[in-house]
Parts: sequence; C-alpha cells; structure tokens
Amino acid sequence: MRAKELMDKDFVYLNCDDSVVEVSKVMEEIRRFTCPVVNENKQLVGWITSFDITRGLRNGNEKISEIMSGYEEVATVNENDPARLAVILTANNKFVTVPVVNDNNQVIGMVRACDIVELLSELYDIKVSKLYKAMQNQLKGVTWEELMAASALVSTKTTGKKITAEEYEANIMNSTFGEAIWATGGLEKFFAGLISVGELVIARRVGRARR
Amino acid sequence: MRAKELMDKDFVYLNCDDSVVEVSKVMEEIRRFTCPVVNENKQLVGWITSFDITRGLRNGNEKISEIMSGYEEVATVNENDPARLAVILTANNKFVTVPVVNDNNQVIGMVRACDIVELLSELYDIKVSKLYKAMQNQLKGVTWEELMAASALVSTKTTGKKITAEEYEANIMNSTFGEAIWATGGLEKFFAGLISVGELVIARRVGRARR
Repeated sequence: MRAKELMDKDFVYLNCDDSVVEVSKVMEEIRRFTCPVVNENKQLVGWITSFDITRGLRNGNEKISEIMSGYEEVATVNENDPARLAVILTANNKFVTVPVVNDNNQVIGMVRACDIVELLSELYDIKVSKLYKAMQNQLKGVTWEELMAASALVSTKTTGKKITAEEYEANIMNSTFGEAIWATGGLEKFFAGLISVGELVIARRVGRARR
Repeated sequence: MRAKELMDKDFVYLNCDDSVVEVSKVMEEIRRFTCPVVNENKQLVGWITSFDITRGLRNGNEKISEIMSGYEEVATVNENDPARLAVILTANNKFVTVPVVNDNNQVIGMVRACDIVELLSELYDIKVSKLYKAMQNQLKGVTWEELMAASALVSTKTTGKKITAEEYEANIMNSTFGEAIWATGGLEKFFAGLISVGELVIARRVGRARR
C-alpha cells in the first residue's frame, strides 16, 4: 500500500496572501486543524496549524505568510512512498496530519491520524473465529470440533488453567484479533499458539490415517 | 487492554470561567487541539476544540462557557472500557481525541489518535521473520532451511510465480507483518499461508519419523 492510497483528498490549500481571519473560518467549516500552504504551482511552501491561527488572531496578523511554518519544518511523504512511512512519521512525532506530495513537490493529499486508525483498526478488529475458519479451510479433513478440542488442550497447557472446547469456542466467537494479541502477550505468542493447535490436529489426522 | 492503559495523562482541564484568550495560549503551548471542560469536581461538563477558540477570538467571546460544546455532545469512554472502544470511536468519527472518565464522570485522561497509531503500528511493524522464528520454536525439530523450503513451495503454488527458498528468506527478512498482509490480501489469507507451511513441514517430519 502506497501513501497515495491512504491519503485524504478532501483538504484545502492555503496561499501566502490568504487572510488569517478568512482561513480561520474555512478551517472551522471543513474541520481541519492543519492545512498546507502552496505557491501558484500548488507546490508546498509552508504549513498552518490551528495554533498558528489562534496566535495570529490574537496578535492581529493579516496574512498567512506572517504566521506559517516554513517549508523546511514540514515532514512530507511522497505519493509513492509506502503508507507505512506516513504511519511511522505520525506515530513517532504525534502528528495529526502528514502532507503527501508528488515528484514536483505539489501537495496532492493528506494522511490523517484518524484515517490511519481506521485502516489499522480494521486489521485489529478481525474476529479470531475468522482466523480459525481460515485454518479449518486450509487443513482439509479437520472438523471444527477437532479444532476447538485441540485449542482447549493447547490453552490449558499454556496457561495452566483448564478450559473446555465449548468454553474455548465461546471465547473466540466474542474476541477479536487485537484482544487475542493483548491476552496472549504479543503477536508472536498468538501465532505460536495457533501453530501448536495446527500441529496437534495434523498429528491426530496423521494418526487416524495410519490406523 | 483498557482505555486507561492507552490514555495520555498529559492534558489540561479547562473551567467554564476560563478566559478564551488565556486558553488559546495554553493550547498553543501544550499543543493540544482539544481540551475537556470540567466543573469544580473535575467532572466533564463540556468540550473545547481549536475551532471553538478561533471562532471565539474572532467574535470577542470572553469565557469558555460561551463557546464550548455541551457535555451531551462529547463521546467518552470509561477508564475500564476496552481500549478497542476508543479505537472504534476514533476510527468511525474521525476524532483527534476521546476523553477518558472514571465512574464519577471525572476526566482522568485522553486517548489521542496519534497514540493509537503508535500502538497499532507496533503490531503492524513486526518483522515477518519474527513470526517464522516463533513458528520454528514451536515446531520442535524443524530447521530454518526446511521452513524456508516449505514456504517457497507454498508461495509458488499459491501465486503461480516460482520462488526459491533463498529468495523467500530474503523477502521475509525485509518485510513486516503489515506489508505481508497487504501483499497476501488480508490477515486470513496470510494466516492460511502460514498454516499451509506448518502443515507441509509437519507432514515431512512425520514422514521422516516413519522411515
């Protein structure tokens, strides 16, 4: 996934000569705390946040150029950069928005923290039962009941806390991938647990085939 | 994970009688676009964004109570709610911040979109090679080379594009979980691929043991 696939195209360009008062109204209307400032070729030349606007309104500044941050202070991503780069910039710098530029330094979109949250939370919010269904589809000839029985065994062994196949099934029906990761102590442990389950059902299937 | 474990405690309370001008300076200084408004018991009574502040400065409003959103317009999470709830609120409503309250409706923290991005991106940014290491640890007696050979076979079969064990290893050394998920078309498919690999190496191990 590239930055351009993650970006929000619903943003507003500002120009250096725009009025601080007018810009404040526009930003309220479109509900954006940050806006890029561009030149006549739509190339990025500065950056405005609501903090610049409140300061400018108090101090009676007239033009955006008087209150904006300069180009060199703005972190950007190229439209063809991996989306991950915008995610890392946002996470490390606590950004609300990262502007996306093309090879001509023209601003073509903005990656917003809330859009990243939406994207990542889709992943995080997948039901664990869906992963089990994928596992069952993959492991031909293994029934859902066998999968739950093996999972209950592995869980009992790992946690030291006895759980039945039915209880295990009820748990995964209600829990998401994200919750399962916190509960097991990380992605690697979660995967290791699933692999143990796979190992157990495969061993049983092989056992059956031999008889 | 609960909301209180994800929240930012570094925020500022506002009171209804605070001056709009003074609050604007505080918000610039602490760099927060949103602030909760509380009563004398620190209970949430309203909400201020930078948009309220810019409007208030333009209109010459004096007090926060004149420009704030009312309590009923603010979405909150309880400190003991699952962190996921704050994530869902942020994703669905494009929020920058969600206030966290205790059972007495006192504001005790704020969940920020950028903090969620940081949390979720740690998950997203795990190296695929780490998952393979966890798999190898789990599957006793399977070598790294066997795992790569099986993965190359499964990949060739799934994608129809021939890949050697060495090429496969080079790929996973450089790619992250997030990238792998985009590349395979979703968590379930990624996971089904790992299970196939596990199935193949287990079948080979069982074959060896029988001889």
